[in-house]
Amino acid sequence: MARRQIAVVGTSSSSSETDALARALGYALAQADCVVVCGGLGGVMTAVCEGVAEAGGLSVGILPGESREAANEAVGVVVATGIGHARNLAVVASGDAVIAVGGDWGTASEIALARKLGRRVVVLGGSAPLDGPGVLAAVTVEEALELALGE
Amino acid sequence: MARRQIAVVGTSSSSSETDALARALGYALAQADCVVVCGGLGGVMTAVCEGVAEAGGLSVGILPGESREAANEAVGVVVATGIGHARNLAVVASGDAVIAVGGDWGTASEIALARKLGRRVVVLGGSAPLDGPGVLAAVTVEEALELALGE
Amino acid sequence: MARRQIAVVGTSSSSSETDALARALGYALAQADCVVVCGGLGGVMTAVCEGVAEAGGLSVGILPGESREAANEAVGVVVATGIGHARNLAVVASGDAVIAVGGDWGTASEIALARKLGRRVVVLGGSAPLDGPGVLAAVTVEEALELALGE
Amino acid sequence: MARRQIAVVGTSSSSSETDALARALGYALAQADCVVVCGGLGGVMTAVCEGVAEAGGLSVGILPGESREAANEAVGVVVATGIGHARNLAVVASGDAVIAVGGDWGTASEIALARKLGRRVVVLGGSAPLDGPGVLAAVTVEEALELALGE
Repeated sequence: MARRQIAVVGTSSSSSETDALARALGYALAQADCVVVCGGLGGVMTAVCEGVAEAGGLSVGILPGESREAANEAVGVVVATGIGHARNLAVVASGDAVIAVGGDWGTASEIALARKLGRRVVVLGGSAPLDGPGVLAAVTVEEALELALGE
Repeated sequence: MARRQIAVVGTSSSSSETDALARALGYALAQADCVVVCGGLGGVMTAVCEGVAEAGGLSVGILPGESREAANEAVGVVVATGIGHARNLAVVASGDAVIAVGGDWGTASEIALARKLGRRVVVLGGSAPLDGPGVLAAVTVEEALELALGE
Repeated sequence: MARRQIAVVGTSSSSSETDALARALGYALAQADCVVVCGGLGGVMTAVCEGVAEAGGLSVGILPGESREAANEAVGVVVATGIGHARNLAVVASGDAVIAVGGDWGTASEIALARKLGRRVVVLGGSAPLDGPGVLAAVTVEEALELALGE
Repeated sequence: MARRQIAVVGTSSSSSETDALARALGYALAQADCVVVCGGLGGVMTAVCEGVAEAGGLSVGILPGESREAANEAVGVVVATGIGHARNLAVVASGDAVIAVGGDWGTASEIALARKLGRRVVVLGGSAPLDGPGVLAAVTVEEALELALGE
């Protein structure tokens, strides 16, 4: 358990705003020597993996299906779980903390499961699909890292 | 698929208010010939199973653990999944609709997963841990049944 | 936990021999007041549910998918898990003992998981896909019941 | 999906014979530029991760529990699934092929699930807990690699 692991969750739809935020987040997390765990598919998941790759870091994509082929091109290591949406539990359990960028019901389930497990949750960029005790808000990537890493 | 199945989710803590609501809900669902699916543990889960049993109906408790022994005494049939909190997905997927009574982060994850799967969600009694499109509010048990059964 | 629950696993292909055996098994289990748990799909799973239904008993089909619609017509209660082949764990964990009729790699995984959990396993009809300590052989339905119920 | 991923499964008990085999296997897989996926716990899982680490490679440990802390010391990246023995599915689904070293019922379930998914399975060292079509035998680490990588 030498390296810190941070889970990044968020919308699977691509938008210029959330993609840019997720890419900058992935870059910064890799720079901070964190392994980035995500759901391995599109939108925020692709963008964060691209940011990690740009910084020469390591990302892990935890897929719902049984085949590695669904993973986005930028993922480093692929875990094919075969358990569908239940893989959301594995994504957040694998992070020391969870950072959310945008998101829908799937992201909301990840935030809820993360909090159920006692993981710190940081919402970056203001559009949290779910709020409550232990869900922190960050405006900038730097702030998100500080809150997630507890520094 | 002759019989309708309704998932009931909610707080695992016992309170006189949510217990009474859940018991009345279980009774009414059984009277309406619905099988009641729940998480099989305490609080709302026990109360709804008691209501179902009083009406001579059938309840199914879907447990996180590998042993049937954790189930509450009132459950009819026990499914031991062995998959921990990922069983929340099985609970809501097994209902044609989902009714929530109170609840915490676990319940919030169930509401989110239910909506992700396109299930109708009804919050009974006003204390929804999560809100959004397709999450309906009911004040009375009768209203919750109407909304859940789409009548 | 008033009623005993027995998991029945086996081939998803239909054959006159295994279907007849599974149907007789389902009938006998229901007569012995056992709830029958199975994977809810075709072949042995359909036949055992038909036997249960003929005897007026209760069967539970635990499906891999997120929708109840994949269940065979004879299932009593349907649990849609959404976790794919990982539902094999839930099938065997939900039985006090497991009886196998024919089967392939899926059935072999169920036998292995059942033994991992310490469940007694009975192979009925001689074609076990997997053998080892705690895997018992039965020639007749009566013998399978005796071994499974520990009487 | 640039890098090949090989799943290594086997006994969680430590023995000088299986440990040595697993360590040599991990070393050879890392040398062949494969990411090694395993269950992240003891016995063969620890030994294979140690071999990977010695060669400067990358291993992924997919744990049954919700916490990263159960992982062995040699694991590179940890995935905490929270789904118990159902994580066996994720282990084998994440490998392009599966190599087994020794093993018990858990390993047998992994071989069965791997074959269910169509993954090639290689048993290294002669003590397969489960046999059948598509399960290949290897005596040496070199032979196991050849069979697993299809070269």
